[in-house]
Amino acid sequence: MAKLWQGSGGGLHPLVEAYTVGEDYRLDGEVLLPYDLKASAAHASMLQSIGVLTAEELQTLKTALKEIEELWKKGEFKVTPSQEDGHTAIEQYITEKYGDVGKKIHTGRSRNDQSMTMIRLYSLEQLREVKALALDLASAAEARLPKLNDVAMPGYTHMQRAMPTSVGTWLGSFAQGWKDAAKVLDGAISVLDQNPLGSAAGFGINGLALDREETAKLMGFGAVQSNPMYCGLSRGMFENVALQAMSFPMVLSSRFATDMMMFTQQETLFVALPDNFVTGSSIMPQKKNYDLFEIMRANGKVFGSLQMQIQETIVGLGSGYHRDLQCTKKAFIEACQLATSTLGLLKEVFQISLGCPGHITKYSDETPMIIA
Amino acid sequence: MAKLWQGSGGGLHPLVEAYTVGEDYRLDGEVLLPYDLKASAAHASMLQSIGVLTAEELQTLKTALKEIEELWKKGEFKVTPSQEDGHTAIEQYITEKYGDVGKKIHTGRSRNDQSMTMIRLYSLEQLREVKALALDLASAAEARLPKLNDVAMPGYTHMQRAMPTSVGTWLGSFAQGWKDAAKVLDGAISVLDQNPLGSAAGFGINGLALDREETAKLMGFGAVQSNPMYCGLSRGMFENVALQAMSFPMVLSSRFATDMMMFTQQETLFVALPDNFVTGSSIMPQKKNYDLFEIMRANGKVFGSLQMQIQETIVGLGSGYHRDLQCTKKAFIEACQLATSTLGLLKEVFQISLGCPGHITKYSDETPMIIA
Amino acid sequence: MAKLWQGSGGGLHPLVEAYTVGEDYRLDGEVLLPYDLKASAAHASMLQSIGVLTAEELQTLKTALKEIEELWKKGEFKVTPSQEDGHTAIEQYITEKYGDVGKKIHTGRSRNDQSMTMIRLYSLEQLREVKALALDLASAAEARLPKLNDVAMPGYTHMQRAMPTSVGTWLGSFAQGWKDAAKVLDGAISVLDQNPLGSAAGFGINGLALDREETAKLMGFGAVQSNPMYCGLSRGMFENVALQAMSFPMVLSSRFATDMMMFTQQETLFVALPDNFVTGSSIMPQKKNYDLFEIMRANGKVFGSLQMQIQETIVGLGSGYHRDLQCTKKAFIEACQLATSTLGLLKEVFQISLGCPGHITKYSDETPMIIA
Amino acid sequence: MAKLWQGSGGGLHPLVEAYTVGEDYRLDGEVLLPYDLKASAAHASMLQSIGVLTAEELQTLKTALKEIEELWKKGEFKVTPSQEDGHTAIEQYITEKYGDVGKKIHTGRSRNDQSMTMIRLYSLEQLREVKALALDLASAAEARLPKLNDVAMPGYTHMQRAMPTSVGTWLGSFAQGWKDAAKVLDGAISVLDQNPLGSAAGFGINGLALDREETAKLMGFGAVQSNPMYCGLSRGMFENVALQAMSFPMVLSSRFATDMMMFTQQETLFVALPDNFVTGSSIMPQKKNYDLFEIMRANGKVFGSLQMQIQETIVGLGSGYHRDLQCTKKAFIEACQLATSTLGLLKEVFQISLGCPGHITKYSDETPMIIA
Repeated sequence: MAKLWQGSGGGLHPLVEAYTVGEDYRLDGEVLLPYDLKASAAHASMLQSIGVLTAEELQTLKTALKEIEELWKKGEFKVTPSQEDGHTAIEQYITEKYGDVGKKIHTGRSRNDQSMTMIRLYSLEQLREVKALALDLASAAEARLPKLNDVAMPGYTHMQRAMPTSVGTWLGSFAQGWKDAAKVLDGAISVLDQNPLGSAAGFGINGLALDREETAKLMGFGAVQSNPMYCGLSRGMFENVALQAMSFPMVLSSRFATDMMMFTQQETLFVALPDNFVTGSSIMPQKKNYDLFEIMRANGKVFGSLQMQIQETIVGLGSGYHRDLQCTKKAFIEACQLATSTLGLLKEVFQISLGCPGHITKYSDETPMIIA
Repeated sequence: MAKLWQGSGGGLHPLVEAYTVGEDYRLDGEVLLPYDLKASAAHASMLQSIGVLTAEELQTLKTALKEIEELWKKGEFKVTPSQEDGHTAIEQYITEKYGDVGKKIHTGRSRNDQSMTMIRLYSLEQLREVKALALDLASAAEARLPKLNDVAMPGYTHMQRAMPTSVGTWLGSFAQGWKDAAKVLDGAISVLDQNPLGSAAGFGINGLALDREETAKLMGFGAVQSNPMYCGLSRGMFENVALQAMSFPMVLSSRFATDMMMFTQQETLFVALPDNFVTGSSIMPQKKNYDLFEIMRANGKVFGSLQMQIQETIVGLGSGYHRDLQCTKKAFIEACQLATSTLGLLKEVFQISLGCPGHITKYSDETPMIIA
Repeated sequence: MAKLWQGSGGGLHPLVEAYTVGEDYRLDGEVLLPYDLKASAAHASMLQSIGVLTAEELQTLKTALKEIEELWKKGEFKVTPSQEDGHTAIEQYITEKYGDVGKKIHTGRSRNDQSMTMIRLYSLEQLREVKALALDLASAAEARLPKLNDVAMPGYTHMQRAMPTSVGTWLGSFAQGWKDAAKVLDGAISVLDQNPLGSAAGFGINGLALDREETAKLMGFGAVQSNPMYCGLSRGMFENVALQAMSFPMVLSSRFATDMMMFTQQETLFVALPDNFVTGSSIMPQKKNYDLFEIMRANGKVFGSLQMQIQETIVGLGSGYHRDLQCTKKAFIEACQLATSTLGLLKEVFQISLGCPGHITKYSDETPMIIA
Repeated sequence: MAKLWQGSGGGLHPLVEAYTVGEDYRLDGEVLLPYDLKASAAHASMLQSIGVLTAEELQTLKTALKEIEELWKKGEFKVTPSQEDGHTAIEQYITEKYGDVGKKIHTGRSRNDQSMTMIRLYSLEQLREVKALALDLASAAEARLPKLNDVAMPGYTHMQRAMPTSVGTWLGSFAQGWKDAAKVLDGAISVLDQNPLGSAAGFGINGLALDREETAKLMGFGAVQSNPMYCGLSRGMFENVALQAMSFPMVLSSRFATDMMMFTQQETLFVALPDNFVTGSSIMPQKKNYDLFEIMRANGKVFGSLQMQIQETIVGLGSGYHRDLQCTKKAFIEACQLATSTLGLLKEVFQISLGCPGHITKYSDETPMIIA
């Protein structure tokens, strides 16, 4: 290895590069690039409005960014490990094809605020999607209530049958939960809706009058996050706020899944789902396995640890930029994907059965019960 | 042990009782009792308004509840392990002193909704106190900014000196954080502000027209949590929402503490606090130890694990009452106490130095810096 | 507050003192004091053997330490908040009653290694107790197997009945788990069995030839932890090793509890426990609630968060003493108490039923099943 | 979607399939396949020895398994999402190329024990690799001690300079930690070294005398995990034991990284690493950023949450197979990769500098200090 560290101009030690870059390039390339493009377009427009870019340069950049977006949609724009992140990949593409204008777009921003803006845009979109799904779930559940309010079922305490209740009351309790989830998510959205672009590396930009209000307007942010050090300080903390809000519907889903695991046991058998929602066993054809609810139950826990991973990474971390913050990206994206896929599947569970001619099961000879 | 389980009418096995009750009776007695009294007074008034209690009975109960509150304030009202919880302690006191009216107050409620209401009232009060402290911190910090905006300090990235910034920008970034903390806390308050009293064991009360709107009004709740099963389902989930909101200022405090640990090192020495805020070493009189910031840094992590303890306890738990939920009480109370004591101390740190004639230190011969 | 920080010799600000001391004095006074006494006796004997103490002084100290132990057993030896910890309480007692010999015992040690030694002794005792309980559980379970190996029960996969198995196979699987728990605990014991006394504040003692081998022998340690900085570095890390080992039986207990919750449902009803192990409901006399298993299921999660609390507190903490380490004490003690009380209760569950004439229940008309 | 679930013979709903399979097929294909091949070869040999397979069939299978291994090494053997896991991919390959013998290899095993065996083999290999790295680190550190034992450095308490110590004592404390890490890892290895193959779905195999001792011998296991239900019960629990053991060196690494972050600050500057180990800033050429230690500090926390993710997923889960267990695979593999890459890089850090002519820095004009 000797020649390496003696480094005849020799770049970063390969082990150090692999260790520090990790999967960051992949996450940018697969998930975050479109948000970087959106932020870059806003930044370019602003630079032109304050006279840093000419109208032609702006036009060239808009064309280039659009090209990249099209290539990305077709899966033809990749970020390589050596590029380390999407920001570099975008600039390299533009510079190679259109020359120095590809460097000029970087005027007045650093990778720090560029990266934060990209993640902020992604975070807000995810929060809004999860909120929409939560409200859809509430509606889908409530659409079932008229049929279910008079269907008796036993109320349980300590997992023992206690007083009678109705299927409508049970399902309605989750519907209320989905509605409160939307309120929790609204709270998070109101906090994250601030534009960090223009904070550069946390110390702002001297000698250049960036119009942060304009980039905020162009990207649809409700406000500018003014203090540049606070922009950096909020990295990770805002992702934490977002995941904490999403944890409400995720915990609710895991609890719904546990109810379903019990209600679908042969011993209880209140509920059945259509065959294409369950897995079977070749040797036991009559056996219906509700794998979807087992995974949903587990994903509530997986989500919780991803959420905590971010909080643990930033708690006790001083202010100012630390590379540690990069490590919050993977957990955040994976958690968002768990939230949207879990609620999306649950929505499907509630909906299919509406069209389906009664999977009637009973918890006693007297009281038929219908869920799906 | 044989005679025990043969149980000549013998009550619960002592090991089982000790294990299941845990510290619950102590937590009720030391912390939650006043909230139970407040909820009981509202419940009694409502019972009288719907004709379950006579005016005299209500008067007797109000007198009794006031007595208990006075005794409690003087530390003379205790909850014993054998009583298991504060609800029992209150009813026993009233019944022994005033007779059956002590039992009548329990009409139309169960321990479940009584306990939930008590905790809900406590949660809302704690959220409001933490919010007030966060806003005080923001004001205390901002009051310092005029003096500090022109005081230069090095901006750090990767813990290395990068570009120059100002003490005002640094302190202002935390001030912005405290303000956003208040927003996060407002979101949680809006979710928890629902009255669970009247949901009984999660199945409501038959044959008794409880006026849940009135108890909500009397206790100052913004709304009634209508679905009785949802009241039970929200137990633990709402405590989780509350702690997640408090985690924002707690994480911020731990990060401020870490900055202070570095800024007070001999190698850096930007800041000094008055002697009565630090501990010393008998053998090294010149040495100043900032234990308060070490504990604050650690408490950010302790808080995080208490917060997660609640989420882990409820995730994957089916709907309906489970005794597991009792275990969320201790972590919740300890976390609230960490939050209020941490922010309260930090407020003191910001304030003392206002009155104090300049603890001036420097980060270089050229640039004096003042924090405290 | 002004006069406070101006502090004419004024001690620590009361808010700072309350915040930094926390519950530490209480934990020492209630739990750890006897281990401090044991370590102090060993330290005194060694000091006499190297000529620091006279034979009479040693005799006086032994008498004094014995007195304190007797008082403590009777609950008459308290540690006050102002004393901050048990070390101070012990020295104050001896000095007030026997004069300067109470100070001389502190020769060649600091609070750091004194505290670490106390906790190390406690940790090892707890690990050995949990191991003994795990082996008792394995034996108690295996004693039932001959009766249960031929009792059929359904094997479950996905919570659905799959292939037939036997109650003996099911209970035997937990017996194997308890045995492996003992192996895991042995691994932890072998790591913690090192004497930190003599490392002082992490930099050893100059000009005094402490005989660390002798104190190790006197306290029953298998080895001396030689590097003084490693003694400090291992604080928290060794508590983490201990709790991780205890987590094996705790997770196993929570899983056993979940099985029991399902096996005792009316819908399944494989198992019943004697009445003095369950709670009932006044309005539903036939209802048996297995609160003990609900709390056991939850305690597996509570334990996990206490365990993680310690790891989170120390991960990323630099070497050398930090006050943060004090915060690991409470979680550690609470977790140890959860482990011993949980396994102790489970042992009782397994044993009572041996003497008890068959709580026979069935999972089908054909197949009677006996657990308890 | 309607036509989907109505699905006459229609397979699993695509959302359900995507949600339940997750990344499992990818993890098998990229990481675990070779261990499945090894287990399959042992199973086949045993089947031949008990007369289930002919000698020719065994030969065919060995050839086929070797082919797959070669293809896999060249990156030409893929597991597709529709195959769901590596087990299916292997059987499909053999069956398509060699006919029914590809099905016969499945005789006497289920996916459950096949999957468990594959993971067990991987776990043991990872534990042994991490142990070897920990011992290498200890040796690499100790090799530096002779040069460093007399190099003075300040000992810190509360992050303030306390008493003098030596660089050798500091580095030696970590060397002791790496050695104890190896002890912790040995404890875990001794627990996991049990062969689960032959437990089938947790209920064993009837009417077929599997020789579990032979497969244990062929795979190098020290023992047979006899109780078939315990094999299933230990899934996740053993991965938890493995990660807990790895957490010792991971926590140690994060603490070493934090020391290095402080020792490399301009304010302290005890240490410098060669240029190819640090990143720079184009605008501040003299600035050296120790990103590798920031990521290492953060990875200690990321590891902790992955470790806890597994414990949270299994705690409170009943016995018997649950699909939830599949969710422990991803966190386990990612955590193992973090552990080996972190220790591997640290080993490189310790080694490079041995060859390198003194990166001398000082903590005071009097005392030069050498680390790297």
